[in-house]
Amino acid sequence: MIALEPVGVVVGGRAEPIDDDWGGVEAVIRLDGVSFATDAVRGLADFSHLVVVFRFHLVEESEVRTGARRPRGNPDWPEVGMFAQRARMRPNRLGVSACALLGVDGLDLRVRGLDAIDGSPVLDVKPYMREFEPEAADVRQPAWASELMHGYYRADRPPTDAGP
Amino acid sequence: MIALEPVGVVVGGRAEPIDDDWGGVEAVIRLDGVSFATDAVRGLADFSHLVVVFRFHLVEESEVRTGARRPRGNPDWPEVGMFAQRARMRPNRLGVSACALLGVDGLDLRVRGLDAIDGSPVLDVKPYMREFEPEAADVRQPAWASELMHGYYRADRPPTDAGP
Repeated sequence: MIALEPVGVVVGGRAEPIDDDWGGVEAVIRLDGVSFATDAVRGLADFSHLVVVFRFHLVEESEVRTGARRPRGNPDWPEVGMFAQRARMRPNRLGVSACALLGVDGLDLRVRGLDAIDGSPVLDVKPYMREFEPEAADVRQPAWASELMHGYYRADRPPTDAGP
Repeated sequence: MIALEPVGVVVGGRAEPIDDDWGGVEAVIRLDGVSFATDAVRGLADFSHLVVVFRFHLVEESEVRTGARRPRGNPDWPEVGMFAQRARMRPNRLGVSACALLGVDGLDLRVRGLDAIDGSPVLDVKPYMREFEPEAADVRQPAWASELMHGYYRADRPPTDAGP
């Protein structure tokens, strides 16, 4: 077993996990003021984006799945294994996401588009560097993944879509 | 504290951490055959790339830094906080990297360009989906980061450069 200590917590943003429309969600990553001083984030504001490692803390261990399932239960999509999708109920319940860094206020990192809900423990924050990413032309993914992600980061959802 | 169980281990590739030239390094992510069956990776081969979360297991807890330092000790680069760089001696010692998926053999994932050394515990494997990444035109990073990353994924380093 590997024991990790959260370096901070997500404050604000959404209170519940919702599948889509994360693009406009703003929140704060509040780094732990006991463990860290502001020199831990010196220079971070020179980056436009972060990579954030966080815990899906509302997923219970009993909910974790390992085998194949249809993403979002959608009958149009194939049964794929938990390591072939990005669902929350995965082993170790870790999320990894890029988001825009809007500003650094002491140990508060203001972000937009982070798909982690209020209260999520944050395990690491890294600067997003383009060289860590594959060339866009080399990336291949199945159609179901593109369909699923279609509205994931939508930021301009019209209010008339927001009904119950 | 959050306790995590490795889902697998890196087998092969480099035996020691070396700063640059990861592009051509091939290795295997061997998922744990006790915890998982092959349905856990069903559909994964339809993706060209993975996102891998792993532990920098050779970094001792006593080596972890939190404050500002010059990346690689390079006097040409500024002192930046540990959350503003991707160095290994970071809180929780977590690495997050994309790599190319060459093939899936049972629970063995053959990869290229994973910057994790032989024996690294793997905490999660996710499919790389382009929609999770920011638009390239929106990404901004300081000059030192681009300079540092210049040779990081170089794959075609000529043998004459490989001296002691």
